[in-house]
Parts: sequence; C-alpha cells; structure tokens
Amino acid sequence: MRNILITLMFDGADFHGWQVQDNAVTIQQTLQNTIEKILGKRENIIGCSRTDSGVHANMFCCNMRTDSDISPEKLKKALNALLPSSISVKNCGEVPYSFHARYDCTSKEYKYLILNSDYRNPFLFKRALYYPYYIDTDMLNSEAQDFIGTHDFSAFCAAGSSVEDKIRTVKNASVIRNNEIIEVTFEADGFLYNMVRIMVGTLLDINRGKIVPGSIPQIIESKDRNQAGATAAPEGLYLNRVNYD
Amino acid sequence: MRNILITLMFDGADFHGWQVQDNAVTIQQTLQNTIEKILGKRENIIGCSRTDSGVHANMFCCNMRTDSDISPEKLKKALNALLPSSISVKNCGEVPYSFHARYDCTSKEYKYLILNSDYRNPFLFKRALYYPYYIDTDMLNSEAQDFIGTHDFSAFCAAGSSVEDKIRTVKNASVIRNNEIIEVTFEADGFLYNMVRIMVGTLLDINRGKIVPGSIPQIIESKDRNQAGATAAPEGLYLNRVNYD
Repeated sequence: MRNILITLMFDGADFHGWQVQDNAVTIQQTLQNTIEKILGKRENIIGCSRTDSGVHANMFCCNMRTDSDISPEKLKKALNALLPSSISVKNCGEVPYSFHARYDCTSKEYKYLILNSDYRNPFLFKRALYYPYYIDTDMLNSEAQDFIGTHDFSAFCAAGSSVEDKIRTVKNASVIRNNEIIEVTFEADGFLYNMVRIMVGTLLDINRGKIVPGSIPQIIESKDRNQAGATAAPEGLYLNRVNYD
Repeated sequence: MRNILITLMFDGADFHGWQVQDNAVTIQQTLQNTIEKILGKRENIIGCSRTDSGVHANMFCCNMRTDSDISPEKLKKALNALLPSSISVKNCGEVPYSFHARYDCTSKEYKYLILNSDYRNPFLFKRALYYPYYIDTDMLNSEAQDFIGTHDFSAFCAAGSSVEDKIRTVKNASVIRNNEIIEVTFEADGFLYNMVRIMVGTLLDINRGKIVPGSIPQIIESKDRNQAGATAAPEGLYLNRVNYD
C-alpha cells in the first residue's frame, strides 16, 4: 500500500464544502469520483479540514492510501485533465504510509478577503465579502492581536459543534489593506467550527461600533458565543496554507 | 439635454462583447435594458470601444445623452442594484454635452494576463490565458519595445476589418512577471481589430521559437497579417484604462 499526498486549490463557490454529504456536491466527492475514473477503484480520501459551503482554498491537503502503482506525476496530470475548472491539483507526491492529512497538520492559515469599496468588483463575486462602509484597518489590526495566544475559544465556536476541547493556540493575526481589498489572516494550531468567520464578524462589529474596542479578551474569557459578533459570510474565506512540520 | 459619463468594470466571460448584436447578450444591451428599467425610457449609450466576446474591462467608459433629471449618484446606485454581478458601475458623472466616449478618448491601455504555471488556477478560469510552458519574461519585454512608435499596424489587424487608416501610435509596452502571472501591457492612441491579441500571440510565438527574436520591426514593415503570430485567446484581455486629456 502506498500513501499519496494531493495538494489542491479550489473555488468553493459552487460546492457544499469538503466533506461528502447526501444530496449535495462536495469537493471530496468530486475528487473521489474523478480518482475512481482514473484508477477504476473508489479510494478513501482524508482531507486536512472540513470546509463550509462556499469556502475556498489556495492550499488544501489530502491523502489517499492506495494499492495502485500510478506515478504521482501521472495522477496529477490525469486529475487536472478531468477535474472541473473550479478544482486544481497543485501537487501530488508519495508520503510515508503513516502520514495523515488531518492528524499530522501542525498549523493552518486562513485568509478572509473583504472588498471595501463603494462599488462591487465583478472579479471578486463570491470571492470576497462586499462591505462598502469605511473600515479602520489599523484599529482592527491592533484589536486582532488580542486573539493571539492559547485560549478556550468557546465564544468563537458555532453552536452545534461536537468538539469538547475548545482550547486552541492562535499564532498570528493581522488585518492589512491592499487598496480596496482588506486581508484578515489568522494562523492557529487548529480552528473550531466557524471560528475564523466569527472572529472576522467580531472585528467588523467592532469597526461599526456594535462592540467596544478592547473587548476581545473579555469575550474570550466569557466563553459565551452570544458575546462575540456575527458570523461573517463564507464567500470571503480561504484556507491559505497548511503546515506539517 | 444632459450628458452622463458612466465608468464600468466588467467580467466579459459570459458576454458577446460590448456592441449590441442580434441573438447574443452584450454588455451594451444589458446596460441599456437596465437603464430603461430605471428611467422608463430606452437611451442610446456610446461606448469608448468595441470589445470582443469574452474580453474583460477594469475600466470602460460610455456616455448617455438624456433628458432625464436623475442625479448621477442615484443612477450609479440604481444601476449597481439592478445590473448582474458581472457588471459594476465604478462612477457616474455629468460631462459637457459635446463629450463623446469614443471620439474624445486620447489613449487606451490594455492588459493581457497569462497564467504561467504547471497547474490551472480556479480563480483565473476564463480570466487569464493558461500557458504552462516556460516564458522568458525579460526577453519578451525587450521584444515588446519594438512595438513602440507610430507605425502602420496592418500586420497586427484581423482580416475583415473595415478600418482604412491602420496607422496607430503605441506609447508604452511592457511584459512583467508577478510570480506565476505574466502581465503584458500596451498603451496606444487606438487599437485595430484584435491588435493586442495578435501582438501577444506574436510574443508567445517568439517565446516558443516559432518566430525569430528581433523580427517585430520587419513584421510591422511587411504589413502582412500572415507574418505576425497567432491571435491569443480573448479570456486574458482586459481594457485597463481609458484616457481623456
């Protein structure tokens, strides 16, 4: 048995996230169907993360244990020829049999894009949150630093999550403006369900004065989802980088 | 009668160019239909340029002479609310009655995007030419300088054009690499039918050795379309800037 690491890039706008579901088209399913066409056999694919409906990835890792002897280079070419234009394979390579895309991941980086302009950008449709009101990027960048550290992030986890341990370590946080596009970036050892979207929603609620600046430490401390801000729409979210040390 | 200048941005992938046609959806038509809904009257819209099927614009100017008293700001808001997501209004403003978006334009800048990578990018699907082979950007940038100047560009004009005067002045030309994306830029007082796409196709033919480096002056001199390279696909082309001095 061999183990192949597949690195993807995808536009998630038309998918119901990564994870296979009944009655909805997902990335995992589309990839499994395409691999089945190539290898003549349905293989199980292990993804590094679940992603929500409409969420994108600049880098998404998954692994497949298989007894096929196809070369990684040939698999990459065949996949890129057969996958829809919304999914692309950046790389395929053989890894040790024990490698697991989810368990072995040491940190992930998410980016959230906000279009801050008084007109929409057709090239960012379903690819950035459209937010026409003034955003104070410097202030939000300073606020975002309060997320850094090891905390119980229960206040930033969507209701309904079955995860028990809600302690995560946020390693980096930044809010940067490139002309009319604002990039919010978070790196952590792991993220809870909707965590990035709730952190971005909280920053936007601070921006519009609905939450007082300086509140993030108390919100974290409260462990109460109702103290944090709204959940920002999925269309601006990108899994940007997955690290395996 | 008032004259309103409308500045657009559009993703041309799903349109048959600017100009109204029978049995095909165009930008001009879509804009006229939307303005008719707002003003209750069909107005004639003068565009700065025809664009081909599938070609995009970061900036496209058009003007509308109307007896409506709608404010430019209100027109912009109403248009952005009603236009499809592929067309956006960056600006609306009143201009002198004599202003003509096509005749008064003193120069235009086009950008052509090439994705030079061994895997496709889902976010550039129909928005850049996918070209996986090595591109020598420095060499092509140096070649592109030979387009600069006032020349008869007959060799770079698609057959079937009815334009008689094929003399144009190219003011700037550049080929720049940003990681895996190559941007080819041309500014001229005007462009012939398919001129940018043939100039880009010629550069790519020089890159792959089908045309000898240093040939551009002779190709221009020949005035023979057959001496120039292929016509590059429309999906990488953007009208980037329109100047009125």
